[in-house]
Amino acid sequence: MLDVCLLGTAGMMPLPNRWLTSCLCRFNGVGLLIDCGEGTQVALRAAGFSPNPISIICLTHYHADHVSGLPGLLLSMGNSDRTEPVTIVGPKGLERVVNSLRVIAPELPFEIIFHEISSEDESFELMGYNIHAFKVNHNVLCYGYSISIPRQGKFDVEKAKELGLPVQMWNPLQKGNEVEFEGTVYTPDMVMGKARKGLKMTYCTDTRPTKSLVEAANTSDLLICEGMYAQEDKIAKAKQNKHMTFYEAAKVARDAKVNELWLTHFSPSMTGHKRYMKAVCDIFPNSYLGEDGKFLELDFSEE
Amino acid sequence: MLDVCLLGTAGMMPLPNRWLTSCLCRFNGVGLLIDCGEGTQVALRAAGFSPNPISIICLTHYHADHVSGLPGLLLSMGNSDRTEPVTIVGPKGLERVVNSLRVIAPELPFEIIFHEISSEDESFELMGYNIHAFKVNHNVLCYGYSISIPRQGKFDVEKAKELGLPVQMWNPLQKGNEVEFEGTVYTPDMVMGKARKGLKMTYCTDTRPTKSLVEAANTSDLLICEGMYAQEDKIAKAKQNKHMTFYEAAKVARDAKVNELWLTHFSPSMTGHKRYMKAVCDIFPNSYLGEDGKFLELDFSEE
Repeated sequence: MLDVCLLGTAGMMPLPNRWLTSCLCRFNGVGLLIDCGEGTQVALRAAGFSPNPISIICLTHYHADHVSGLPGLLLSMGNSDRTEPVTIVGPKGLERVVNSLRVIAPELPFEIIFHEISSEDESFELMGYNIHAFKVNHNVLCYGYSISIPRQGKFDVEKAKELGLPVQMWNPLQKGNEVEFEGTVYTPDMVMGKARKGLKMTYCTDTRPTKSLVEAANTSDLLICEGMYAQEDKIAKAKQNKHMTFYEAAKVARDAKVNELWLTHFSPSMTGHKRYMKAVCDIFPNSYLGEDGKFLELDFSEE
Repeated sequence: MLDVCLLGTAGMMPLPNRWLTSCLCRFNGVGLLIDCGEGTQVALRAAGFSPNPISIICLTHYHADHVSGLPGLLLSMGNSDRTEPVTIVGPKGLERVVNSLRVIAPELPFEIIFHEISSEDESFELMGYNIHAFKVNHNVLCYGYSISIPRQGKFDVEKAKELGLPVQMWNPLQKGNEVEFEGTVYTPDMVMGKARKGLKMTYCTDTRPTKSLVEAANTSDLLICEGMYAQEDKIAKAKQNKHMTFYEAAKVARDAKVNELWLTHFSPSMTGHKRYMKAVCDIFPNSYLGEDGKFLELDFSEE
């Protein structure tokens, strides 16, 4: 299963009762954090997590509200005696930005591995996560991320028996390894059924609606998407500042056929968020306001 | 009068219920902030202040818990349409550190003026504040700050009359200007009494007890001083990490003959702070635990 916790829901600046937008995923003991604005390490603790199991940090872009908490988080991870490396993923300029911020965190007891996204979109596997980064449309280079956990097909016991494979060879095949038995090489596809539906969550802030987002979010179990403004008269401001309204995010969720939408990255000027949700749900019914610490456990469906 | 607000009381890392140690002073509409760790802009708002009136930021040293909130604060000041310059005061390396952190806040609508402290101690006047920076003893170059508001003597009406000065010339003399009347130059000292007791507050974190601190804090109305540890068995750790215990801070307060002591910069490992205060007050009776948002208005005494 994949745990998802939306640590904060603010855009632009942290507020006394609203942390900056960032998201923690956990799968198989490995933490993956998306964005790390000022105070993210506090939001993490407030939600009941520790920074230490985080091995992957994906940055959407280098505006301060998405990255200014990084040196503090890295130091706190160092203070918890972490020695395993941390992989930081982000757009062009990654090393320069992170190393500039590290002027106040120059010595860490663990290695930082940089993974710079260099094309419009990129997919790669990291510690059990399938990560798909896709370029969106903000006033600086910005990416969204789809995080998927694939699920292999069922092991076909009948087929294994038919092939005459002894039981002790079943487990390596289930784990994706080839085996050799009596001079013949057996590959996993010979005994494994078709891959089953895995888990997928998509996270996207700081963009106008884009085709890349709709395509990347396609059939996600959860879409966490920015809704900087809700007031109808803010559409011009959303366009100018390259952000989205609640309604635009709902249309993305509908077009991407996701299961559930959480709105986040709210403008500090907005109040009374709830009153806009009826109109949002008219577009995409399974829409929810993000809240600091909002948590979901995504489980593989049966079969 | 001089307003003093201790915005946070944590050392090392911000916690869900404890902001990092920093301090806001206000005098005559001008805000002066000492240190700016991660979340200081939130602590500021939580205490009821806005970042915009801050015109001076004094940094004690460049450990992350004292400076990582700077880019976010500067951006929030910019977002409030600030155009007046901000003076940042700090130890050697000031421009390099601030400009590195500004990798995520490259464009601001106001100028930053750098005032680097280059000697063991330095005194200067800035927008009505008399600032005295003094070197302390930490594992990196670190300064404490005494902030004083001087108070001139009383205007001597009898003397002015005796000199035959017309009433419209009294005010410029009171404001420190020379005047000329019937061919004679009159200077303020001719009509002003002896300077009266002003206001003084001293702020010091991240150091072992030092002579420089005791001297700089001498007769302060308020001393805000680190007490990283309270447990008696932490004295070795305090020495090793160049910090102080509650009791060492109380001895500084006693030796400096201050009026009042607030302890701050508590180790994240400490709990039950109150139980140590009896022993602290045995050393210096007017000692208090710092609390996030603790506020004091220092007024000129009568006469």
